[in-house]
Amino acid sequence: MTETYDPENIFAKILKGEIPSNKVYEDDLTFAFMDIMPRADGHTLVIPKNQARNILDVDSVDLAAVMTSVQKIARGLVQAFDADGILIQQFNEPAAGQIVYHLHFHVIPRHEGVKLKPPASEMADQEILQSNAYRLRAAL
Amino acid sequence: MTETYDPENIFAKILKGEIPSNKVYEDDLTFAFMDIMPRADGHTLVIPKNQARNILDVDSVDLAAVMTSVQKIARGLVQAFDADGILIQQFNEPAAGQIVYHLHFHVIPRHEGVKLKPPASEMADQEILQSNAYRLRAAL
Repeated sequence: MTETYDPENIFAKILKGEIPSNKVYEDDLTFAFMDIMPRADGHTLVIPKNQARNILDVDSVDLAAVMTSVQKIARGLVQAFDADGILIQQFNEPAAGQIVYHLHFHVIPRHEGVKLKPPASEMADQEILQSNAYRLRAAL
Repeated sequence: MTETYDPENIFAKILKGEIPSNKVYEDDLTFAFMDIMPRADGHTLVIPKNQARNILDVDSVDLAAVMTSVQKIARGLVQAFDADGILIQQFNEPAAGQIVYHLHFHVIPRHEGVKLKPPASEMADQEILQSNAYRLRAAL
């Protein structure tokens, strides 16, 4: 695998503000927003601001910053969505399910007895995403 | 969720050397070993040496160290197992699939067209685990 970074990927466009997103958190090195095809209410993506295709090429300082934000989001989801658990997933290259080629961590609230929706199966209603982003931001 | 750390969990015992494991990597803050019920050949677990139940309570320095090791293992698996992709998963609390209550990241090599085995489904042959650990160590 010698894949490189495509600066026109959709998350790069979100970072540049060319495509809107439901932001929940931002700091110098990281950005977090609602997944538009959530597997559960509150499903959030955390990404580095610097370019990285995935975990294989990301700078270690960026990776540490992303994980600090992942932890912050995980704790926020427990509080805001009364989650019983948190699932964290990160896919590298198509064989592992990567679809967008900018490093991202999925942070997904789980509730006992509630099944996850299949990955990238259904676009969520924009008002629900906005409401969930608001709810999570209030808990951070 | 106000769960605490159980110092008698199985990964704590591995760290104390009370239970054997197929070690692939170790540094001051982290430890990596073969999952005994791998979802694919080379399936590795990365854990902090310090106590942490999961991502909700782990110290940020330990988390950063764990992720540096996760990245190292991911790169090693691409090289040693000629992986087409790497799946990273981390489960917090039973509702998210956590079974052992010491923070661990699953680092799983993927190959195009090869399905994963179900989670924790089948104990691997000890000789195969040893051989896979050797193969991965040689690439680190």
